[in-house]
Amino acid sequence: MDKSKLFQKMENLVRSAQCLICNALVEQDQNVLLVKDEWDYSVGTGGGTTCVLKSGDVFEKGGINISLITGVLPEFLASHLNTEVQPFQVCGLSIVIHPLSPHIPTIHMNVRYFEMENRMGWFGGGIDLTPYILDEESFILFHQELKTICNRYQKNIYNVYKKQCDEYFFIKHRNEMRGIGGIFFDYLKDDPEKVFLFIQDITNSFIPIYNRLLVKHHNKEYSPLEKEFQMIRRGRYVEFNLLYDRGTLFGLQTNGRVESILISLPEHVQFTYDYKVPKELESILPYYQPRDYVLS
Amino acid sequence: MDKSKLFQKMENLVRSAQCLICNALVEQDQNVLLVKDEWDYSVGTGGGTTCVLKSGDVFEKGGINISLITGVLPEFLASHLNTEVQPFQVCGLSIVIHPLSPHIPTIHMNVRYFEMENRMGWFGGGIDLTPYILDEESFILFHQELKTICNRYQKNIYNVYKKQCDEYFFIKHRNEMRGIGGIFFDYLKDDPEKVFLFIQDITNSFIPIYNRLLVKHHNKEYSPLEKEFQMIRRGRYVEFNLLYDRGTLFGLQTNGRVESILISLPEHVQFTYDYKVPKELESILPYYQPRDYVLS
Repeated sequence: MDKSKLFQKMENLVRSAQCLICNALVEQDQNVLLVKDEWDYSVGTGGGTTCVLKSGDVFEKGGINISLITGVLPEFLASHLNTEVQPFQVCGLSIVIHPLSPHIPTIHMNVRYFEMENRMGWFGGGIDLTPYILDEESFILFHQELKTICNRYQKNIYNVYKKQCDEYFFIKHRNEMRGIGGIFFDYLKDDPEKVFLFIQDITNSFIPIYNRLLVKHHNKEYSPLEKEFQMIRRGRYVEFNLLYDRGTLFGLQTNGRVESILISLPEHVQFTYDYKVPKELESILPYYQPRDYVLS
Repeated sequence: MDKSKLFQKMENLVRSAQCLICNALVEQDQNVLLVKDEWDYSVGTGGGTTCVLKSGDVFEKGGINISLITGVLPEFLASHLNTEVQPFQVCGLSIVIHPLSPHIPTIHMNVRYFEMENRMGWFGGGIDLTPYILDEESFILFHQELKTICNRYQKNIYNVYKKQCDEYFFIKHRNEMRGIGGIFFDYLKDDPEKVFLFIQDITNSFIPIYNRLLVKHHNKEYSPLEKEFQMIRRGRYVEFNLLYDRGTLFGLQTNGRVESILISLPEHVQFTYDYKVPKELESILPYYQPRDYVLS
């Protein structure tokens, strides 16, 4: 399947973004290991490059993964998309960073372009934050930054994507969100050149957004209780990703590369029966429910 | 919904078994905490009792849970069962024990009786073992014991239930089993009194089967590498339970008590990108594939 011009542009974007983001992250953690794995897609053509951050002082685990794969739509997806079974190609960048310190939020970003042989295509993605310690100023700034990006693309769209994010990252059986949300969007296909600029804008914003959080929080001390709370919340992260995350489930169902899909799971996780949040840490809990951070 | 005689017998069985099994386990671990929670089923009537083992020297985490709940079949299940939406009641005992030492296998047992208002009912359950260090003698003995129980119930049925277990506890995306299997069965409805005796036999065999493993292994030293391997395999346990386990998914979909469902997850878990099994621990890997332990 040949690549459309837009697909090629997206490929260039994710390739250079992967390189820049890895470099920027490594700069923040002198002891982190960066491992780079090139892989082939076992059931179709194409493949990807998975960059892994390991055992750092700042980053306990991180994945910066690009994939460029061609395959044939599985039937469940073709029927979901209301189209016939046909070849598709997808180009995406997916990032999940799990820092060691509970002061630094876990961050996730994903951008992707999905194109079918009939040239129907769309963009999807988003960015969301999972903090473990309350810092309202940071939360507001994070959402403000996303709103600014959305505004450059389309007025009032932040509210729509913010709401979609709140809904998407909701852990139904826990009746709470994975974190404090962000933005989430899918099936963007009108005016694709304009959407591409939006996608590019989000991608390029990852480092300034996350660096600000790193700089602000990386030197703070934390208590064993705060660390344990982070481990428990990482358990919720695992619950969400394995039970609800469409990307994870789609990847596993279509025989994607398991290690690159499950790199999103945190390194160390704790599942404690009937864990009670210590009183002094409770203040963050309301932020795991949908709430407004910036004025509309 | 009133209880059939068989349902009442099953209730008596699981109540007394819960008590006996908790006592027997606590006897093996002088420092373990036993917590007992009675709970109500939020969306139907009934409830259960969850007994939890916590922070022991032998048992890092364990759940011995009974539930006796009445609800209305969700539509997806009614259609799966080829019946109309109607009230049901279920009575079950579910046990998962995660020991601290990688020498002692994780064990899981589940027995349940499910009855619909139209009095159609069936038994299901099984028992399976997840070891982390090779001890072939124990593995063979475990399967031999299960075969003996099966033989008392029905000649040649062990092979059937063993195969079903191999298939059920298969982690598709890893192309391996969760452990070394055991037996698994569902929808047993012919000659229910006879099935009940089989269920009773399995339930009563839990303590002798597990005690033998505890006694044999609990004093053995282990290395950091063996401990890490256990943590990684516990990650596979989590992957299986959240991605594939029908009991877990059914429980969450029908608004079961989350803490009692997810008590099956180990306390401490590790997810390492592209983990390589150390050479000296590789010998167990073939046992995570279906294989014969006892002659037919």
